[in-house]
Amino acid sequence: MKLSNLMIDEIIKNALIEDMPHGDVSSDFLFNGEERSKAHMVTKENGIAAGLFVAERVFFLIDEETVFTPLVKEGETVQKGTVMAEISGRTISLLKAERVALNFLQRMCGIAAKTKRMAELASKCGAVIADTRKTTPNLRILEKYAVTVGGGVNHRFSLSDAVMLKDNHIKAAGSIAKAVAKIRKNIPHTMKIEVETENLDQVGEAVRAGTDIIMLDNMEKDEIERAITIIDKRAVVEVSGNITEENIGKKLVPGVDVMSSGDLTHSVKAMDISMRFV
Amino acid sequence: MKLSNLMIDEIIKNALIEDMPHGDVSSDFLFNGEERSKAHMVTKENGIAAGLFVAERVFFLIDEETVFTPLVKEGETVQKGTVMAEISGRTISLLKAERVALNFLQRMCGIAAKTKRMAELASKCGAVIADTRKTTPNLRILEKYAVTVGGGVNHRFSLSDAVMLKDNHIKAAGSIAKAVAKIRKNIPHTMKIEVETENLDQVGEAVRAGTDIIMLDNMEKDEIERAITIIDKRAVVEVSGNITEENIGKKLVPGVDVMSSGDLTHSVKAMDISMRFV
Amino acid sequence: MKLSNLMIDEIIKNALIEDMPHGDVSSDFLFNGEERSKAHMVTKENGIAAGLFVAERVFFLIDEETVFTPLVKEGETVQKGTVMAEISGRTISLLKAERVALNFLQRMCGIAAKTKRMAELASKCGAVIADTRKTTPNLRILEKYAVTVGGGVNHRFSLSDAVMLKDNHIKAAGSIAKAVAKIRKNIPHTMKIEVETENLDQVGEAVRAGTDIIMLDNMEKDEIERAITIIDKRAVVEVSGNITEENIGKKLVPGVDVMSSGDLTHSVKAMDISMRFV
Amino acid sequence: MKLSNLMIDEIIKNALIEDMPHGDVSSDFLFNGEERSKAHMVTKENGIAAGLFVAERVFFLIDEETVFTPLVKEGETVQKGTVMAEISGRTISLLKAERVALNFLQRMCGIAAKTKRMAELASKCGAVIADTRKTTPNLRILEKYAVTVGGGVNHRFSLSDAVMLKDNHIKAAGSIAKAVAKIRKNIPHTMKIEVETENLDQVGEAVRAGTDIIMLDNMEKDEIERAITIIDKRAVVEVSGNITEENIGKKLVPGVDVMSSGDLTHSVKAMDISMRFV
Amino acid sequence: MKLSNLMIDEIIKNALIEDMPHGDVSSDFLFNGEERSKAHMVTKENGIAAGLFVAERVFFLIDEETVFTPLVKEGETVQKGTVMAEISGRTISLLKAERVALNFLQRMCGIAAKTKRMAELASKCGAVIADTRKTTPNLRILEKYAVTVGGGVNHRFSLSDAVMLKDNHIKAAGSIAKAVAKIRKNIPHTMKIEVETENLDQVGEAVRAGTDIIMLDNMEKDEIERAITIIDKRAVVEVSGNITEENIGKKLVPGVDVMSSGDLTHSVKAMDISMRFV
Amino acid sequence: MKLSNLMIDEIIKNALIEDMPHGDVSSDFLFNGEERSKAHMVTKENGIAAGLFVAERVFFLIDEETVFTPLVKEGETVQKGTVMAEISGRTISLLKAERVALNFLQRMCGIAAKTKRMAELASKCGAVIADTRKTTPNLRILEKYAVTVGGGVNHRFSLSDAVMLKDNHIKAAGSIAKAVAKIRKNIPHTMKIEVETENLDQVGEAVRAGTDIIMLDNMEKDEIERAITIIDKRAVVEVSGNITEENIGKKLVPGVDVMSSGDLTHSVKAMDISMRFV
Repeated sequence: MKLSNLMIDEIIKNALIEDMPHGDVSSDFLFNGEERSKAHMVTKENGIAAGLFVAERVFFLIDEETVFTPLVKEGETVQKGTVMAEISGRTISLLKAERVALNFLQRMCGIAAKTKRMAELASKCGAVIADTRKTTPNLRILEKYAVTVGGGVNHRFSLSDAVMLKDNHIKAAGSIAKAVAKIRKNIPHTMKIEVETENLDQVGEAVRAGTDIIMLDNMEKDEIERAITIIDKRAVVEVSGNITEENIGKKLVPGVDVMSSGDLTHSVKAMDISMRFV
Repeated sequence: MKLSNLMIDEIIKNALIEDMPHGDVSSDFLFNGEERSKAHMVTKENGIAAGLFVAERVFFLIDEETVFTPLVKEGETVQKGTVMAEISGRTISLLKAERVALNFLQRMCGIAAKTKRMAELASKCGAVIADTRKTTPNLRILEKYAVTVGGGVNHRFSLSDAVMLKDNHIKAAGSIAKAVAKIRKNIPHTMKIEVETENLDQVGEAVRAGTDIIMLDNMEKDEIERAITIIDKRAVVEVSGNITEENIGKKLVPGVDVMSSGDLTHSVKAMDISMRFV
Repeated sequence: MKLSNLMIDEIIKNALIEDMPHGDVSSDFLFNGEERSKAHMVTKENGIAAGLFVAERVFFLIDEETVFTPLVKEGETVQKGTVMAEISGRTISLLKAERVALNFLQRMCGIAAKTKRMAELASKCGAVIADTRKTTPNLRILEKYAVTVGGGVNHRFSLSDAVMLKDNHIKAAGSIAKAVAKIRKNIPHTMKIEVETENLDQVGEAVRAGTDIIMLDNMEKDEIERAITIIDKRAVVEVSGNITEENIGKKLVPGVDVMSSGDLTHSVKAMDISMRFV
Repeated sequence: MKLSNLMIDEIIKNALIEDMPHGDVSSDFLFNGEERSKAHMVTKENGIAAGLFVAERVFFLIDEETVFTPLVKEGETVQKGTVMAEISGRTISLLKAERVALNFLQRMCGIAAKTKRMAELASKCGAVIADTRKTTPNLRILEKYAVTVGGGVNHRFSLSDAVMLKDNHIKAAGSIAKAVAKIRKNIPHTMKIEVETENLDQVGEAVRAGTDIIMLDNMEKDEIERAITIIDKRAVVEVSGNITEENIGKKLVPGVDVMSSGDLTHSVKAMDISMRFV
Repeated sequence: MKLSNLMIDEIIKNALIEDMPHGDVSSDFLFNGEERSKAHMVTKENGIAAGLFVAERVFFLIDEETVFTPLVKEGETVQKGTVMAEISGRTISLLKAERVALNFLQRMCGIAAKTKRMAELASKCGAVIADTRKTTPNLRILEKYAVTVGGGVNHRFSLSDAVMLKDNHIKAAGSIAKAVAKIRKNIPHTMKIEVETENLDQVGEAVRAGTDIIMLDNMEKDEIERAITIIDKRAVVEVSGNITEENIGKKLVPGVDVMSSGDLTHSVKAMDISMRFV
Repeated sequence: MKLSNLMIDEIIKNALIEDMPHGDVSSDFLFNGEERSKAHMVTKENGIAAGLFVAERVFFLIDEETVFTPLVKEGETVQKGTVMAEISGRTISLLKAERVALNFLQRMCGIAAKTKRMAELASKCGAVIADTRKTTPNLRILEKYAVTVGGGVNHRFSLSDAVMLKDNHIKAAGSIAKAVAKIRKNIPHTMKIEVETENLDQVGEAVRAGTDIIMLDNMEKDEIERAITIIDKRAVVEVSGNITEENIGKKLVPGVDVMSSGDLTHSVKAMDISMRFV
């Protein structure tokens, strides 16, 4: 997923207006717009670079003449003290963009780093790590992008682009078989169907219904193993349910294709980055 | 701070459209809009309730006929397993609103709980805990609200509503004295001036300049103590700089008025809450 | 696909403002808002009802007190002279909403009727008729809905929700095999891959690459037959390329799953409907 | 009517976001943004060029560096196989803009061609062909522009810019005389009044009321002739009511000034145009 | 012109957000939302009531439960001390809406009163007073409405709805005759043409060109008289150019149809109105 | 306060669309876009320049190639007949931008000039003149900027950025002391508290409550003098209540810090400026 300006400009403009509804009283009354400065974006801890083009766009949308030079690449591992970007332009413009640029960048780097760590853990059993819809409201596009930078894969983007049948759907339709049959009759032929299962009986039903993806929700390791045997490569196997860095180790089972974790995006530690005039 | 619908509806509508740009393929093709369900929002860990009216509004904006009954109050401590709200209405409407409502609620509860823990720590030295501008882009109003629910206080909302002079401002103006003098001449008489200081010399200059608030940035405990002596109640004393739950204990000094922490909002663990049909 | 007000209100409001940027000079200067009228929406030719809730919403957004009573159901076949809906309320409000309501309704009914005719033709060989992305800009959601009302199925909604590799994609990647392999590695596991093929060699390659859906673009009947033999149920078979009511008959081949036609939405004859005060 | 970017950019941006709410999964995962391509927009049938600057703007709004070179002029007659424009730039950008650009262009060319055919027919009796408010919601400005490209003239743009009194208005006011008198007293002196008439008595009344424009609605040829005699050049004569390419021949009467047809915009066959990489 | 909520809600919402980007720190921290108050909108000088429904809508958009009871009618003459409206509801809601409601109301009443005074002056020579496009940006619809409440008439609403040819247009086209001829050939038959003239030669040319309306710009009384003789009822006569309450008396000439004045809207004294809790 | 394009572009775009919802029928049908012109913005009375960059931006947003050269500086005193700016570019673009540019500029210059006159009067007693929230809805940022250009200072921008307790607030809280105490406990430490007082008893209470700013509302000169004695430099002294150019002289008392006047922005005479082709 690559993000064009068309897709991020409104988000950034709103964030700038949120942070400056009627001017920057500190800078506007201290500087006259003629002063020039150069600044560094410096990491204060180790991490992964993600979202530098978003930070760059923040500076551009405040002042088209600001020059933002990224010094690391998206996805690159950075050590504490790394200068991620050099920025030069009007003092007043750098000061106005600083906080918003960092707010985006710190969050995206934080997500990429967490994803990288979990992707490495998941890969031990041959699985990939995927995100969920548990993203920050109105920032999903940036967060899902950051997940890919960290080596994760994206799950469905929204309720509109893939079917996932959960217990409530199934209950209302009567059974997995009925729900899948009804949905398959109606949905676009370009869409897949995923079913969330809570026990091995449901896994069996889902396989027989011809489900494309079977999610094993909150199952223990041995249950996952048996589910994989039941599925027998007839569907993609996704493990989910409170998957975190701390407990992912307990669910690593060969045969799992995807491990999905809301934690990647809903409980992120922002990477510590600051902007220093040089 | 109380949030009127006028201030939150656009945020919520955008989030719903983000999660459903062209319908919910699972629910829309399985249900016909006639089915009715009742659901519980249940906590899966201990925490603090914050943002229930936002969750309620999410359901309302999907379907005005959905009935959302909060069962806990804003700011109330909740134990694992608590039913925070009961929701009844069209099955299809509950399913469409669920994830977005939870995404807001889980984040706001997470912020309130973290704030409460840090407010209790800060109160040991008589200080209050305050937030910063390190909030999630475009959600500042919700996050600053959640901070107050957790017992914290809000710092300035944006670059527009209070002056904070940092090292870069001071460098460009020549000195703290010159910067403060220039600013005071121009800004509204309704505004206060805060100066960020990095050492005791700067603290002295700031006091002499008649600064309203003096921020002690990244100082150690003994330096904070000496700064308080220098300030001698002539300005509000704010301690800041990487204040987290882990290290706040090292900076608790009587005489500090405010401890401000970006961590309250930029590195939050979402509270685990789920919606279950009953 | 069911359309909530959240998804259509902006479209309708914009259309009303487009048609009335600064008032209705005819009605505003003739009536005082007290006069009341009752009106019928009457068909002037045979067709299929689609979009009545959109028309209803137009009247509501002009005046919440207008009562709109649909007298036919979505998808119902209507004869010339049928009263599709009865509307009563302020004379001034009925007159302001009339044209916009009809502009939506006439187009949606037109699409549904055309879809129904083509769906019946496609069903002769066991295929379903599907729409494309060749929809009217900014009305896709309404047009794809109308297609389903007419008995058609939706193809992918946008560039974001399914992969379709066309000749240009394939050329740039080197081959169908390479393109499919590269895409499969990156895309969400919830997504399918469709490949557009122009000859039987490409069909063979697409099958071997494990493509989910194979589109036979602009092929003649005998070529389609041979392609179906090659595919041998290992992929969904979609026939496309200038499929119209006039020529669909030439492409009806048992074994085709889907026939997709831009004509359903880009070249529509609006159904003739008028609003008459009664 | 000439369209500035200010007036079309929002329409185009919305259409691009509609077609790509969260990226182009086909192109984004296959290309890295470095690849370059050149493409031709080629007509697949005869027609009239209209809207090339809209297509150009679509490409620009996706990627400012794309070069779009129109090879035909607005209003020019084009033969099947004509290269209407050459486009060069990033492969990924061309692919993202293609469908939306064509959706606009095909519709606008279709309207221009239809208008041209009907304008030529209308001119046989010395009349011009005019559009109506029966346009596609939210595309009126583009459709009315395309009508002028095809040699038609625009009728009023909206309910705000000219008065048209229909049967319902007249009924409520008591008579044509009363309605016209009341309206004339209130409306800006810059506005004209048109009255829709259904029979020769009404035509007489409208003339006596001093109406600027008299519309003869759904009248047969001989009735139109008698109306023209009655009006005797004291008002503009407009013939309307289900005027299509098929039946316009039956209403060609010398003395008619304007023939208005909703068909020009509500029932358009899109011109077949495709984009081919070269 | 009557204003529906559809046309004013965005203006009002933006104004409320402008006045309260992140809450009302005075009321939000003092009241809890349970307190109830009753208030009066009281005039502090004589004037004309205009815009009460706008004020009412401001209160509604803050809090749907606030009850706003207008006690005077639109256009009614009010004396100092008149209670224009009674408002009751949540204390916190009344306080939040007060200033924005008054800002709209005071301006609209001010315009209506000024218009009424000038309309009476203009009527002495049988003319009506009309507004111009010299309105406050983004409030034109409200200001033109207030002009009608005061007994004035509206001139064209925008550049889109009537032709006015000024000296620059004429210069570029070569002559009034050429300009009018070229325009008449192209514009909708529903539109009128106005020509601005600066001397009697131009008046003569404009008449011969068949202009619908002739504006006499900045002419003295005797020049206006001669122009009226030249025009001889073959066009509407409009007098314009710095028409104010002070100098309108110098331009009152029988035969003038319309006197247009930018002063009505660009240089308004707001009527003094306050809201008092009772 | 300096205004970035980010903060004014939406205001300007909306104003341009308001003035031209569907093209400029005069210019669009008379010119083809090739013609070029040069124009002068000329003052027709003495005044103060304010808002030239806004006018410049209006021309830019219509046509990026228009060259706008300001010939006077913000805040400069200009005599009648001064050329404030020279503009050159497409004839059609100059004509489309003219009115909107002037509508902004004339209002901003009018505010600056009025402010300058009142600032000079206020300075006689050592006070500064400040604006209020009585600004034109949705133009507050431009009007408050113009006040600073004229030498005034800004009061609080909105309900969000400073506390002002009026009689109603005080009544509900029981007393000034209680209201101030309650507010102080809750508001950000970066905010000041202002109390509006109507008599000397309230002034005394406000001082004792530790209020930062005390507003003397509608007091006569002798009352103001006694209030200043009571306050004794323990709070900022603000005089307010119907302060106009006419009556400010009656309230000039040494010791007053700020005189605030709604008249600066709610009752402005636009400066007379016109654009002439040269």
